[in-house]
Amino acid sequence: MATRNNPERTPERLMEEIRGTRLPIGCIAVWFFGQESMVIKGKETVIHIDPFYSNYLEVRGVKRVYPPLLKPESITVADLCLVTHEHEDHLDPWTLKVIAKQCPKARFMAPLSCRPELETSCEMKPEQIIDALTGEWLELDGNNGEQIRVKPIPAAHESIETTGNERAHRYVGYLLDINGVKVYHAGDTIVYPGLPELLAEEGIDLGMLPINGRDYFRTSRGIVGNMNIREAAELAKISHMDMVVPLHYDLFAGNSEKPGNFVQELYERYPEQKCHVMARGERFVYASPWSFLTE
Amino acid sequence: MATRNNPERTPERLMEEIRGTRLPIGCIAVWFFGQESMVIKGKETVIHIDPFYSNYLEVRGVKRVYPPLLKPESITVADLCLVTHEHEDHLDPWTLKVIAKQCPKARFMAPLSCRPELETSCEMKPEQIIDALTGEWLELDGNNGEQIRVKPIPAAHESIETTGNERAHRYVGYLLDINGVKVYHAGDTIVYPGLPELLAEEGIDLGMLPINGRDYFRTSRGIVGNMNIREAAELAKISHMDMVVPLHYDLFAGNSEKPGNFVQELYERYPEQKCHVMARGERFVYASPWSFLTE
Amino acid sequence: MATRNNPERTPERLMEEIRGTRLPIGCIAVWFFGQESMVIKGKETVIHIDPFYSNYLEVRGVKRVYPPLLKPESITVADLCLVTHEHEDHLDPWTLKVIAKQCPKARFMAPLSCRPELETSCEMKPEQIIDALTGEWLELDGNNGEQIRVKPIPAAHESIETTGNERAHRYVGYLLDINGVKVYHAGDTIVYPGLPELLAEEGIDLGMLPINGRDYFRTSRGIVGNMNIREAAELAKISHMDMVVPLHYDLFAGNSEKPGNFVQELYERYPEQKCHVMARGERFVYASPWSFLTE
Repeated sequence: MATRNNPERTPERLMEEIRGTRLPIGCIAVWFFGQESMVIKGKETVIHIDPFYSNYLEVRGVKRVYPPLLKPESITVADLCLVTHEHEDHLDPWTLKVIAKQCPKARFMAPLSCRPELETSCEMKPEQIIDALTGEWLELDGNNGEQIRVKPIPAAHESIETTGNERAHRYVGYLLDINGVKVYHAGDTIVYPGLPELLAEEGIDLGMLPINGRDYFRTSRGIVGNMNIREAAELAKISHMDMVVPLHYDLFAGNSEKPGNFVQELYERYPEQKCHVMARGERFVYASPWSFLTE
Repeated sequence: MATRNNPERTPERLMEEIRGTRLPIGCIAVWFFGQESMVIKGKETVIHIDPFYSNYLEVRGVKRVYPPLLKPESITVADLCLVTHEHEDHLDPWTLKVIAKQCPKARFMAPLSCRPELETSCEMKPEQIIDALTGEWLELDGNNGEQIRVKPIPAAHESIETTGNERAHRYVGYLLDINGVKVYHAGDTIVYPGLPELLAEEGIDLGMLPINGRDYFRTSRGIVGNMNIREAAELAKISHMDMVVPLHYDLFAGNSEKPGNFVQELYERYPEQKCHVMARGERFVYASPWSFLTE
Repeated sequence: MATRNNPERTPERLMEEIRGTRLPIGCIAVWFFGQESMVIKGKETVIHIDPFYSNYLEVRGVKRVYPPLLKPESITVADLCLVTHEHEDHLDPWTLKVIAKQCPKARFMAPLSCRPELETSCEMKPEQIIDALTGEWLELDGNNGEQIRVKPIPAAHESIETTGNERAHRYVGYLLDINGVKVYHAGDTIVYPGLPELLAEEGIDLGMLPINGRDYFRTSRGIVGNMNIREAAELAKISHMDMVVPLHYDLFAGNSEKPGNFVQELYERYPEQKCHVMARGERFVYASPWSFLTE
């Protein structure tokens, strides 16, 4: 029930909140819209990651546990849109098409292998698309003169695959350097050799990791897996993330996980590891450890 | 293992962090040091709640699950110190005495019935003590000209008791109005008739609630109980707290609870209720929904 | 604290209980002694599975979470002893050697690749050993004229390996047909293609499955993995086990799992699937669905 303190968070109100939010250096706001759909904003630039708000999968018989919190047509603010891979809960053509149309200045970064679908089903112009070639930081103009940096890194879902050239990975995660905060959105991935070291070297402030895991029976049904609760907890710890946020546990009944178990796992094994579980549609303001500190 | 990204959080470094932190309007920083020991700071004023860092109980045979993160002698910054009730894990005489001595300008608010112990065991001067009379907002001078407001409210641990006069409750929780944020620290309490309505009327941004519950056997052993996971979840929801933080689950093996279960309970029943589980010693920056919003 | 109703279950009392237990047709008694160590008895024959009661690993630096409930020298009754594979928490040479000496009529079944160690470290005579060749039922004389049947089947820990010939698997599980009850002790295994079908075809009454799972970090540390909670639950269900018992979750801190989570997974997904979690040292009497039924 919506109240004065707690007004209903309609898609329109959410977009207004995204549009209006501006944070001081060392901080970002993160919105969570289920599965791995996030919006991130530092000072000026609005970044969508894996926006999945249409009924594209629904009409193909895949039911969501709860309806989308945003609607494609409600998305009127987007500077950058990051797509981690081709699966329809990440690259949702009916959402991306609308964003590309409504936000003509937005650019879309996705694995090279996604380009054909972006150009056809999503009706983007080639110049709207940036190929997510892994391993190098890319400087991008954000909104209103803000500079941001993005670095795609390989994801293993469940294997690491390249398409075309060695930096053209089929599955990627994204490192973001925005408003003084280093963010990692893992996409869909298991832990692979080298990933903990790569993340430790980058120095992640806020790491967002899938926790739904994988098992024989889901694999048999064609559900490609991710790291599980235990792996996500240890990855956060040994790569020294300041804070970890679990993703990919809530949208499909047959591929879910309990976020409470992730919190309990962390609490029992690494009680000093910071963690935040996002409420549905929450705007979470993350402040890095060096923000708001004076001498 | 401490690293560059993750330096060891010694009592001295923690105090430096508390001293150096200054937040914009609509925000507060909250530190969690186990059980119900918190530090809260908005812009200028440092507020300790139930500081319990000595081995007062330890030498009486009550073992902590982990050592205190602060030490009494490390506390060199304190403007206000709130004590919720007389139990030694809340009113720790060996910690309070040191704070009173090291921070002569600090004032200590506690139930009227605690005054004798504060004046004797804790060696405070009468003028350092403010009686926590319930039900009215009190304006207080904070640090550096900052004004804060405090309102003690009754706590039921497990019953509501008054001592002396009807506003002199033996157990209290505290409402704080600091830097534009309305905070509720419940102290030790069960949910009692009128509490949800009182909190809803006040409009709580950040509510901090015990979750350890009560049961026949703990009661038989003289352990006075609190609200449980389920009650804390529903209380947060129906009183429209913006965010809830669980307390009182981690310090004594015989009186503990699983914070992951609280997160899971919230996720299953109220997936839009914001929650944050504090890591040990974490500085958590809470930003209210109306902070950082521009037109 | 032991009481009249609850006398301390010393190794000697446990052996007396094992010796004295005799069950009607359609029933077996199962004792659980941690990790995958079990004793099974129908009417007359005492079967040990993976008896691991010495400090063989302890002196090599691997600490148990709790001390063994039996001692090698306390084992004075054994007709058959099944070893699932060569790992020391399953093939414990210091336990097996004592059993072989104290129970000269006992026979030991183990993968062919274990025979050298059984003959040397465990000082068994060749005729005491039966090679666990997979895929065929073997009739064996039990105690006092009782006939039992055993069928080793391949286990995948984490891969299926053969040594010497195609029926000589390095890791096995055991099917038992004893006193009218069909039992499956999985040994250490993941779910592999064909396993659910094989078990469904045999018609398992009581299935005992590891639940500790596997992950990137344990694999990195050389810990070979097993099926996890979710897989064990679905395996029990789709192979129509009458009852499932979780194993391999309790003995080593770095390789543990929460049996309660297994129960919860079953409760949420398959509420009609029978399950029993063994208390430490419990004698559990399993009565098959057709036992104790009259016209």
